[in-house]
Amino acid sequence: MIDPRSCAVVIIDMQNGFIDDRSPLCIAGASATVPACARVLAAARSNGMAVVHAVRSYAADGSDVEPCRYGVWKQGRPLSQACPAYMNTDEPPSLAPCSDDIVIVKPRFSAFFATDLHDILRRRDIETIVLIGTTTPNCIRSSCYDALSLGYNVAVVEDATSSRNEAVQRANLEDMAFIGAFMLDSYEFADRGLARMPDMRQMHAADMERC
Amino acid sequence: MIDPRSCAVVIIDMQNGFIDDRSPLCIAGASATVPACARVLAAARSNGMAVVHAVRSYAADGSDVEPCRYGVWKQGRPLSQACPAYMNTDEPPSLAPCSDDIVIVKPRFSAFFATDLHDILRRRDIETIVLIGTTTPNCIRSSCYDALSLGYNVAVVEDATSSRNEAVQRANLEDMAFIGAFMLDSYEFADRGLARMPDMRQMHAADMERC
Repeated sequence: MIDPRSCAVVIIDMQNGFIDDRSPLCIAGASATVPACARVLAAARSNGMAVVHAVRSYAADGSDVEPCRYGVWKQGRPLSQACPAYMNTDEPPSLAPCSDDIVIVKPRFSAFFATDLHDILRRRDIETIVLIGTTTPNCIRSSCYDALSLGYNVAVVEDATSSRNEAVQRANLEDMAFIGAFMLDSYEFADRGLARMPDMRQMHAADMERC
Repeated sequence: MIDPRSCAVVIIDMQNGFIDDRSPLCIAGASATVPACARVLAAARSNGMAVVHAVRSYAADGSDVEPCRYGVWKQGRPLSQACPAYMNTDEPPSLAPCSDDIVIVKPRFSAFFATDLHDILRRRDIETIVLIGTTTPNCIRSSCYDALSLGYNVAVVEDATSSRNEAVQRANLEDMAFIGAFMLDSYEFADRGLARMPDMRQMHAADMERC
């Protein structure tokens, strides 16, 4: 049984610049997941889980944008100080950080890439992370693989993640489940937390102690 | 036009433990890609590109295996000194490193994760990496995203990569193309190198200089 105090929900990129359909970086499925994300955040807080917001913020001149994304980004300069409010860095009001939440700026896809997220989580003895936000193929998946590589248990709340279309969403959830991420939906998370989730981290450690 | 001397082919995990169908970590499509991988390596060497082999090697007791993979891994202990030769760390003879090649041990999925690959490439002024090997959804894709995050141009040689089934292979190639990886096959690479590939790194840099 996983202790909620050893868990952190990491909400990724649920910002105007990825949600509003006027942004060149809008993800088609993202705005529909706002209620599910809010449900997960409320349940996490009431169960004593840590909450981390991993967000994007680009320089107005685009100098820190990934070269592979720059051509699209510059059609509006979302998530920077050079864009209109509807595609800025803000999260929707129902997802805005509470005072106990942790906020990190994530310069690339993975929430672990060039951030101090791993140190933040270790200082709080976090062993399990729960991923929500957007997009499933990019930031959720990259964060999932980095977290598994670092030895965390990883859960993904399926209906609180989103993709450019449903086929991409399904294929990416399937791949993450196949490699060892635990899948559940926001209603199960709100009702039962991670009661069904195996603790692979402890299973591995216990097997090593027997050697 | 991308200079071949600024390019490195990175061949990932084409080892007995991922290729032989007696290994619990065998990838169904991997052995069929050996000739395409050999074609890419030969073309790279004849064009003056660097070649990096990123390989796995686990401790015989499994203490360094990813917790999410440990349950499958221990059914044979592939890619360690505790397993039979048919699923050990060797590459097939046609893919074995030449004397000028670089070999790094990759402890996790991405060839950049907890390795000095980025430093190795920077010292050689490498700006473009060409990915081949297995598996497309795990190590190729994680390496692709890390390379894009680090500002490299990334090419993926489609028929020199492999997955557990064809649907997974297609979905992952599509996602990598969508985020900005350049796709080609081993025959085009052998005939024309990267002649069709855009240099997104230089395009971004040039746009910044105009600001």
